[in-house]
Amino acid sequence: MALAFDFLLFCQRNPRPCPILEVIEAGEVEPRLTAPGADIRTDIPYYRVYENGELTGEVDSLKEIWRDDLVSFLLGCSFSFESALSEAGISLRHQEMNCNVPMYVTNIATNSAGVFSGPMVVSMRPVRHDKIVRAVQVTSRFPATHGAPVHIGDPSVIGIENIDRPDFGDGVEIRPGEEPVFWACGVTPQAVALNCKPPLMITHAPGHMFVTAQRDADYAVL
Amino acid sequence: MALAFDFLLFCQRNPRPCPILEVIEAGEVEPRLTAPGADIRTDIPYYRVYENGELTGEVDSLKEIWRDDLVSFLLGCSFSFESALSEAGISLRHQEMNCNVPMYVTNIATNSAGVFSGPMVVSMRPVRHDKIVRAVQVTSRFPATHGAPVHIGDPSVIGIENIDRPDFGDGVEIRPGEEPVFWACGVTPQAVALNCKPPLMITHAPGHMFVTAQRDADYAVL
Repeated sequence: MALAFDFLLFCQRNPRPCPILEVIEAGEVEPRLTAPGADIRTDIPYYRVYENGELTGEVDSLKEIWRDDLVSFLLGCSFSFESALSEAGISLRHQEMNCNVPMYVTNIATNSAGVFSGPMVVSMRPVRHDKIVRAVQVTSRFPATHGAPVHIGDPSVIGIENIDRPDFGDGVEIRPGEEPVFWACGVTPQAVALNCKPPLMITHAPGHMFVTAQRDADYAVL
Repeated sequence: MALAFDFLLFCQRNPRPCPILEVIEAGEVEPRLTAPGADIRTDIPYYRVYENGELTGEVDSLKEIWRDDLVSFLLGCSFSFESALSEAGISLRHQEMNCNVPMYVTNIATNSAGVFSGPMVVSMRPVRHDKIVRAVQVTSRFPATHGAPVHIGDPSVIGIENIDRPDFGDGVEIRPGEEPVFWACGVTPQAVALNCKPPLMITHAPGHMFVTAQRDADYAVL
């Protein structure tokens, strides 16, 4: 419970990397607010299990290992604003290249809470100069899926040494006439949580997201 | 700690009435993020002390009664978006009448968390028809101070029987050519918290707000 409080507080203090959509309390498995009828133990396609900070397994159901003292956190994903970017005529390089979005550990500190602290991880999408303002506007509408960019342009300003070598995901081409645009990334809370080596921690496997019953537009603030 | 977790979760589930600006953890008294150097035990001008749900005192310092297991929550106040409304040419009737804003208990349910549940309380400001859209736009920029209205027009739709008799604050005149516009109100979490009669609960006294070191514009999302 103390760990759950500290993690909830960490998310509250860092809403850009950690936008909470729902918290499922200890003893419960249904995301009542965002996906009534779903079961968090079975409705993510693939899970990763970490013990004492080490990956110890990948499973497609948690029924065998579930414990009644586990608290679940559903965080918004930037996949949800990518369709809004596409509709605004902003192409997504990692989708064109059929690879994962590049992600980087930055020198931007998060606000710590209890045992949770560490640097912000960001995702990067190259955007043409004539679309950068629109990209800011479009994503500002979706704070629940990481919201507006945290940085635009020169990667070294946020501590990224080599833009071609992301810390997670795949490198993508930045073409002439484009700037790299950086958004806070949901890898941040996972990295921060693993840092403190909790006895048991379970996450979705990369790319295997939980799909709610909400529509993207439900999370638009404007 | 269990009560603090549930209250934090209640606020997370009800961001319109309960927009958290900062949580000061047990054992700490400084709002490090929003007002570095301040002391939550002395820097609110007037406090109300409740024991088992009953008001038992009003004091101007908490130094005598402070306990190291108390967790403090700073919530955004609609006073912070009223200057933005004024700048947009939207007059504030309760300020013109030199009285408190009218507040009403509604039939809008909050999302419960642990022991915390109850109806949403709203504040009401009459707005001229030609300014209603602008009032929505202006306050949408400030989700941290209750954000966009929760209702516009016919009060009975949200369970308000008599607009002239608010449950808290003072009644204000609604003139021809105006509609009542309702915003989620910070009285909600206080009412909900008192409902469950905690052994000790301390709030600011009405109108005696905590002033942070932040500017209103720091909380604008656009």
